[in-house]
Amino acid sequence: MTKPLQDCSVAVVGLGLMGASLCLDLKSSQLCREVRGVARRTQTVLDAFFAHAVDLATNDLQTGILGADIVILATPVRTIVSTLEEIGPRLWPGALVMDMGSTKADICAAMAHLPAGVQPVGGHPMCGKETAGFEASECGLYRNATWVLSPLPRTSPEALALAAELAQAVGARPVVLEAARHDRLVASISHLPFLLASALTAAVAEVGADDPTVWELAAGGFRDTSRVAASDTQMFLDILLTNRAAVLAQIDSFDRHLHQVRALLEQADEPGLRAKLGESQRARAGWRKQ
Amino acid sequence: MTKPLQDCSVAVVGLGLMGASLCLDLKSSQLCREVRGVARRTQTVLDAFFAHAVDLATNDLQTGILGADIVILATPVRTIVSTLEEIGPRLWPGALVMDMGSTKADICAAMAHLPAGVQPVGGHPMCGKETAGFEASECGLYRNATWVLSPLPRTSPEALALAAELAQAVGARPVVLEAARHDRLVASISHLPFLLASALTAAVAEVGADDPTVWELAAGGFRDTSRVAASDTQMFLDILLTNRAAVLAQIDSFDRHLHQVRALLEQADEPGLRAKLGESQRARAGWRKQ
Repeated sequence: MTKPLQDCSVAVVGLGLMGASLCLDLKSSQLCREVRGVARRTQTVLDAFFAHAVDLATNDLQTGILGADIVILATPVRTIVSTLEEIGPRLWPGALVMDMGSTKADICAAMAHLPAGVQPVGGHPMCGKETAGFEASECGLYRNATWVLSPLPRTSPEALALAAELAQAVGARPVVLEAARHDRLVASISHLPFLLASALTAAVAEVGADDPTVWELAAGGFRDTSRVAASDTQMFLDILLTNRAAVLAQIDSFDRHLHQVRALLEQADEPGLRAKLGESQRARAGWRKQ
Repeated sequence: MTKPLQDCSVAVVGLGLMGASLCLDLKSSQLCREVRGVARRTQTVLDAFFAHAVDLATNDLQTGILGADIVILATPVRTIVSTLEEIGPRLWPGALVMDMGSTKADICAAMAHLPAGVQPVGGHPMCGKETAGFEASECGLYRNATWVLSPLPRTSPEALALAAELAQAVGARPVVLEAARHDRLVASISHLPFLLASALTAAVAEVGADDPTVWELAAGGFRDTSRVAASDTQMFLDILLTNRAAVLAQIDSFDRHLHQVRALLEQADEPGLRAKLGESQRARAGWRKQ
């Protein structure tokens, strides 16, 4: 029998941007019985405690999750995978185990090995920022965000409902997606944009090495197109290395489109360029306004 | 002898985002004696007039520029080039002719053929938006923007000073750059980002054709990285086709960086990826905060 969120003790493992922002929402709006935070660094434990982001903060993983009704893993993806192996035997029977990792296939595969009584639900709230760490956390980060939930075949409907209740409680919109499908889609709208921003920044830096005025001229176009290149490198290493095939396929798809444009430009094929660029213009302008 | 801006009649040719926003600033802050607006479409002429963006609006180019002390061309680049040929013989001796085009080499080359008495200064305010047209115009668009000025060898210091005065009067920061250098730099921080955004949108649309949920998941990363893909196609055709060599070189530079990352990812070379992505992370995070 699953408790309502209101009666749950929630343990959040990892107090970076995502985990700490969730704690702040849970605690400030009193959405659950108790909020526990687990962080590796003692300084983060202290910061979280003094910021009133949690009721209990610790850097001892086993202490943090002991007796929790909901355990939420909010570290980089590969740390989530190893943490799942570590905490498995210590979880309460019936505990809901969620995560906030940016790729789902490896995590859901690791969740399948959790002890039988535990209820796993993979998850990914779609609301990153290019700033990271506890100090970047904020109340309301999840408001209006899409929060992907990837249940396993073994996950009970009640556990999935509790996960959805938690997402909705902080203002997010839960969307249930199978892990592999999630990973294929985010390769396209998140991982590819990161790599483009990163390579764009490298290309501009190359120009800037000869002529630093380029940085002075850079305005809104460069700022927005390159923004995500400033994202945490370790987080993206985990993402890219746990979603390699899908990301490589998206790079290749992008590459075909860019080279099509390049060929049209080289030939000064104006009608061809107009058609190709106009197609993207309409697709992007027609996307929901934000 | 050059008049101060306050005593000048200013004619702006082209009442899209850039031209109309300039008119609004000039007129609302009474920065010059008179603001004239020239637009091709009668509807735009009427819109500008009723919005009090101009003192006089017309769709007759010759009427619009007659007797103006400053003529500012604010149409797409290739229209600026043809307009320069057309208006040359009708300009007052001593008139300052400026433009707001996004590439400078072709425009400055055309300016060199203006009658001897005319004072040409190429220009490019670095503050586009992805929305276009008169209805997108706004007061204050140029505030804190970099406004590149490209004088010709024949341009008098007084004429350049008047052009800089105008840029400063609307809150912009004038930066004097030689036309070819300007074009090389903006190929990197403006034209390349547009093409990446456009090809990214095409790649996402390809995924979306099979699985439209991709558009629902798309969040801040895609939104910002792709934003400029919604820019006016005709404006960008003019830009790309008048800056082909520099843009092709930038595509190739970007391509090298992206393929370097692709190879590292394919080989799962984590230290290599960390070094490559970390370099861009530091460059982008270190860029002036906006």
